[in-house]
Amino acid sequence: MGAPPAGTANFLFASDNTAGLAPEALAALGAANGGTVPSYGDDEWSARARDAIGRVFETEADVFFVSTGTAANALALAQACPGHQSILCHECAHIETDEAGAPESFTGGSKLVALPGPGCKLRPADLDPVWRGGRGVHAQRPGALSLTQPTEWGTLYAPDEIRALAGWARQHGLAVHLNGSRLANAAAALADRGFAPADWTWRAGIDVLCFGGTKNGLFATEAVVFFRPGLARDFASRLKRAGQLASKHRFAAAQWCGMLEGGAWLRHAAHANAMARRLADALRRLPGARLIVEPEANGVFVELPRPAVEALWARGWKFHPFIGEKGYRLMCSWATAPGDVDRFAGDAAAVLG
Amino acid sequence: MGAPPAGTANFLFASDNTAGLAPEALAALGAANGGTVPSYGDDEWSARARDAIGRVFETEADVFFVSTGTAANALALAQACPGHQSILCHECAHIETDEAGAPESFTGGSKLVALPGPGCKLRPADLDPVWRGGRGVHAQRPGALSLTQPTEWGTLYAPDEIRALAGWARQHGLAVHLNGSRLANAAAALADRGFAPADWTWRAGIDVLCFGGTKNGLFATEAVVFFRPGLARDFASRLKRAGQLASKHRFAAAQWCGMLEGGAWLRHAAHANAMARRLADALRRLPGARLIVEPEANGVFVELPRPAVEALWARGWKFHPFIGEKGYRLMCSWATAPGDVDRFAGDAAAVLG
Amino acid sequence: MGAPPAGTANFLFASDNTAGLAPEALAALGAANGGTVPSYGDDEWSARARDAIGRVFETEADVFFVSTGTAANALALAQACPGHQSILCHECAHIETDEAGAPESFTGGSKLVALPGPGCKLRPADLDPVWRGGRGVHAQRPGALSLTQPTEWGTLYAPDEIRALAGWARQHGLAVHLNGSRLANAAAALADRGFAPADWTWRAGIDVLCFGGTKNGLFATEAVVFFRPGLARDFASRLKRAGQLASKHRFAAAQWCGMLEGGAWLRHAAHANAMARRLADALRRLPGARLIVEPEANGVFVELPRPAVEALWARGWKFHPFIGEKGYRLMCSWATAPGDVDRFAGDAAAVLG
Amino acid sequence: MGAPPAGTANFLFASDNTAGLAPEALAALGAANGGTVPSYGDDEWSARARDAIGRVFETEADVFFVSTGTAANALALAQACPGHQSILCHECAHIETDEAGAPESFTGGSKLVALPGPGCKLRPADLDPVWRGGRGVHAQRPGALSLTQPTEWGTLYAPDEIRALAGWARQHGLAVHLNGSRLANAAAALADRGFAPADWTWRAGIDVLCFGGTKNGLFATEAVVFFRPGLARDFASRLKRAGQLASKHRFAAAQWCGMLEGGAWLRHAAHANAMARRLADALRRLPGARLIVEPEANGVFVELPRPAVEALWARGWKFHPFIGEKGYRLMCSWATAPGDVDRFAGDAAAVLG
Repeated sequence: MGAPPAGTANFLFASDNTAGLAPEALAALGAANGGTVPSYGDDEWSARARDAIGRVFETEADVFFVSTGTAANALALAQACPGHQSILCHECAHIETDEAGAPESFTGGSKLVALPGPGCKLRPADLDPVWRGGRGVHAQRPGALSLTQPTEWGTLYAPDEIRALAGWARQHGLAVHLNGSRLANAAAALADRGFAPADWTWRAGIDVLCFGGTKNGLFATEAVVFFRPGLARDFASRLKRAGQLASKHRFAAAQWCGMLEGGAWLRHAAHANAMARRLADALRRLPGARLIVEPEANGVFVELPRPAVEALWARGWKFHPFIGEKGYRLMCSWATAPGDVDRFAGDAAAVLG
Repeated sequence: MGAPPAGTANFLFASDNTAGLAPEALAALGAANGGTVPSYGDDEWSARARDAIGRVFETEADVFFVSTGTAANALALAQACPGHQSILCHECAHIETDEAGAPESFTGGSKLVALPGPGCKLRPADLDPVWRGGRGVHAQRPGALSLTQPTEWGTLYAPDEIRALAGWARQHGLAVHLNGSRLANAAAALADRGFAPADWTWRAGIDVLCFGGTKNGLFATEAVVFFRPGLARDFASRLKRAGQLASKHRFAAAQWCGMLEGGAWLRHAAHANAMARRLADALRRLPGARLIVEPEANGVFVELPRPAVEALWARGWKFHPFIGEKGYRLMCSWATAPGDVDRFAGDAAAVLG
Repeated sequence: MGAPPAGTANFLFASDNTAGLAPEALAALGAANGGTVPSYGDDEWSARARDAIGRVFETEADVFFVSTGTAANALALAQACPGHQSILCHECAHIETDEAGAPESFTGGSKLVALPGPGCKLRPADLDPVWRGGRGVHAQRPGALSLTQPTEWGTLYAPDEIRALAGWARQHGLAVHLNGSRLANAAAALADRGFAPADWTWRAGIDVLCFGGTKNGLFATEAVVFFRPGLARDFASRLKRAGQLASKHRFAAAQWCGMLEGGAWLRHAAHANAMARRLADALRRLPGARLIVEPEANGVFVELPRPAVEALWARGWKFHPFIGEKGYRLMCSWATAPGDVDRFAGDAAAVLG
Repeated sequence: MGAPPAGTANFLFASDNTAGLAPEALAALGAANGGTVPSYGDDEWSARARDAIGRVFETEADVFFVSTGTAANALALAQACPGHQSILCHECAHIETDEAGAPESFTGGSKLVALPGPGCKLRPADLDPVWRGGRGVHAQRPGALSLTQPTEWGTLYAPDEIRALAGWARQHGLAVHLNGSRLANAAAALADRGFAPADWTWRAGIDVLCFGGTKNGLFATEAVVFFRPGLARDFASRLKRAGQLASKHRFAAAQWCGMLEGGAWLRHAAHANAMARRLADALRRLPGARLIVEPEANGVFVELPRPAVEALWARGWKFHPFIGEKGYRLMCSWATAPGDVDRFAGDAAAVLG
């Protein structure tokens, strides 16, 4: 990843999906490319991938692979929530802001109820108001709660926080969905605090989650993982009807084998998290920059003066406004090098100086 | 591709999607894996791939990439046919028999009207009866005609045949869709007769087609190609809502560059077609085997006695019943070697002897 | 119902929905029009109507009211069959030929599998072929069987025939739906053979049925009746989301009270059936007329020479071609008088003479 | 409408749909009940009703009838807004709060974007923020603006206010829908200010509206009225597929004839509005009662102390909490008599005293 020539666009911090394939994923594609195998997931690579995901969560689970995060979330929600019920989520949730109606479409009309909460997180008290409407059959009764881990602002739910939310949901008859498009980053960060993925997923009450592959360095594969027995019933049919059953399925699966079996997924995610901290530490010292939240995963959310932003864009650094008028998002990935961070921080210092 | 050990399953002839990635596709994945680029198709690989597809068809076209053939067909049909109209297709069409309701689902209720026709092909006369119902608003008026090229039985429409069908469709106000999940095989076969892809697609009246990548040796990418100006309006939004907008889009696109820019797509398809002819020529000489249709693309459809089939299965050759009680399908791909064909034919001769 | 002036259109035999409201239904509308009552079905008229329907079937049932037969069938099927499964029906079933994709739309993509069978009826043997595909997740597995009683050709399933079909369905895991848009006519006809509605509905294995009000002389109300406990779960929400929860619900319900509580529904239906027999008996004696099936309910299906049909149309009698090129449908209703039948028969004799 | 016996439930103020049919509607049902006529709207009553609606709006329009307000709104919106676009509405709009996902379901996934605005009304400035997201294909671009007239709080948009909103919508490429479930009440109120329905509908930029029948005293019929030429294309097919094409259509239409042709619709609505003013004038004098908004149509929205509410409920008066914790809704209809208002006001004075 060379420094961008002056004025050349550099998309490194624009998103964690602008990077390429992690080396282990690419190698796995090559390794899987021998001979003929059954299509549609009935091959050994697919079985290995499902097993590897089961080991990540230390449990039996029903595992499926789809091609995008939007499909993963929308289809998981459609499975967990009937179309006449609604889905509770944070008002900044990706399913609410960036999935173009896919959840509404695949559920057959479930309304997303977008709720505010500090730090892009929800608490049980934030959910209580939805039960006060009392409009019976005329309003959609909530059928699912959707959380994001890490959140769209790069913050993390502690296992206890998830347990409290899931407990609330269970009490009210809601299924609990976790959007884990950056689940690896959460896993790496929470491992540092002594928590295994099981602790903040099924042990805390998550029924189904989407385990993101793309932002961890894979191509065209995200996993949908059902923990609650029976919840995955006929999900294969749902995938097929949604155009999400890959025929050369081994190449989706092999990438997961390459990333999970040797632990690369966690190393890459930990690296991305470290780069975000390095970037945040550099930016917090700059006059005129203000961190909106402390980074807990691989994103940095910072307020910057507009002239500084435009000066950075002019130097080729591409990144997006994300929170209100002044808040910008800088994402780190497996491919972000310390030198990239330092060059960006240097340029930021120059334009803010 | 070694010979299967006795009793070991060999999926070579089971489908043309049991093979791996074509070498050119795999190499392109590696070549594209440097640096960061914009997501969602705004990168140079994606632009190159769209251009390459335009050159295949010698015209400007609106080109999109999705992850499966089912998604390609269902979304193209949803774009071309409103949900209150029906879709005419052959009764053996993949959209009718093997897509699990995806067309009905994505169109929002279009009924597939499955019509018979010899050799898995339709003629204008086969379509006429659908206009005789006269039930007005109570029945769905046809809104689209869907053809498959090559057909599910490995036969081909001549350009004139497509022109006649599309003319009939135009006259009745129908859009015309072509399912080209094996379009490369048709292109190779029809090139031998002096026809370019343009001759039997847009020049013959096709409005939108699905250009299959998977069966040509690619992973997780099929192209939807709109020829009729304006027909693709807002299709990007439809894709996004359907969970079909890949974020690491360059890896879908790069595979197309690798296959199309150097002509590998046609070479591989021509090879697969040649292997099908080789296989057919061997089988037609065997007592007890009867070719159902002459192979024109990469599939062989043959009637075999059940004991012979079971004996072949016992030797490890996996293939599926496909037509009636006695008709079996044997597919060839870029990865089928002459020796594979000869070994299979030899085993067939042995069990039929 | 006066004789039509020469050349004036008379829609009496065109359908059994061209007649007005049965007097008992109209009177009930007036009787219910006092005071204010709760909306949406929480009123006493609605409770009485549900009770009256329970008594018709001699069982507890979950009863709902919707505004059209298309809505009744499509929503009942959507409740009984998930969108990734298919619905088996006769190829002449109204849901297949005349509901414009409503079943596909409300189920979210269920494919209707239209099967042939003599006399517009299905037998278990007609259903067997659908299990031979063996295409697994790629094809929709059947999830429901839909029967029509009386059929679209005015024929009747005997209780044993329904029992056999429902037994087959149960064995294969299918729900069983009955389209009873003319259920009253079936009830009247089968009462003559000693069968109660219960005998050929829930006792024979029907899970859910649509009890037609319109063709019995009601306005904007059809009943959906669930016999299988639990199958109606959240159906009220489905209705609301489908725009089928009437606010002035008492006026739907009151019509049922007026028709069911005093037995008018059966008397009117028996009268319509008798008129159909009278008409058939007159027509069968005419040279050039051929009954396609013996009438068992309120419809007469007859082959007539085209010139005779056009001569009848010219005399003002409106009726529709229905079966093939030469088969016409003549429907009788509560409002058809013997004199109407005799005048039509006389005109038919004149034009055929 | 007699006074309720002490402790007996009286639903008079609970909604304007708890009353029965207006006498003119009931009489029209009887008047239409002679002879046979074509089904599905091809009869003279239906033609007359469409003409009468055209005269209300002083323009040619495409007019359709459906059975509920939810169906009217959801299907009109589905016609005006493609599923990949969103619908802007007030956060208190009925389509957002009380239609159970019908708009999301019939549109195929359109997201409702619920915006705040004072007095249950929107202004162009309230809409501006929705364009600031800048998320391109990832978010749904707005495709329609939905207004309610009178609003769910009984307030009215002046013609100029609608013109400003519609102008904003036109400028941004949005269709404009008006939910007029109480359109008659708005028409009566605005007639007092010298405005005809045309002034605040199509002349102000409304493309399609729902003209409520139920709350004006009709059963099972609401009109969908398209002003923009071409916008109604194939809407009849959409209705049929949605189960909303009534077969005994004349009985829907006749009610409109009865109400519109002699002006009863406006007289009844003006009466209901006057009853709401009478009620408001009585309540505003009571200590402890606070009008939330000045009534402009037929609803009164008032804050009352909870003990007073419970005391009124105990006296049999049924009405619902509607705004926040303390705001209650009291609706008046064609059937509300001055004595009813005075009795309620008297009881309110007693319990608040």
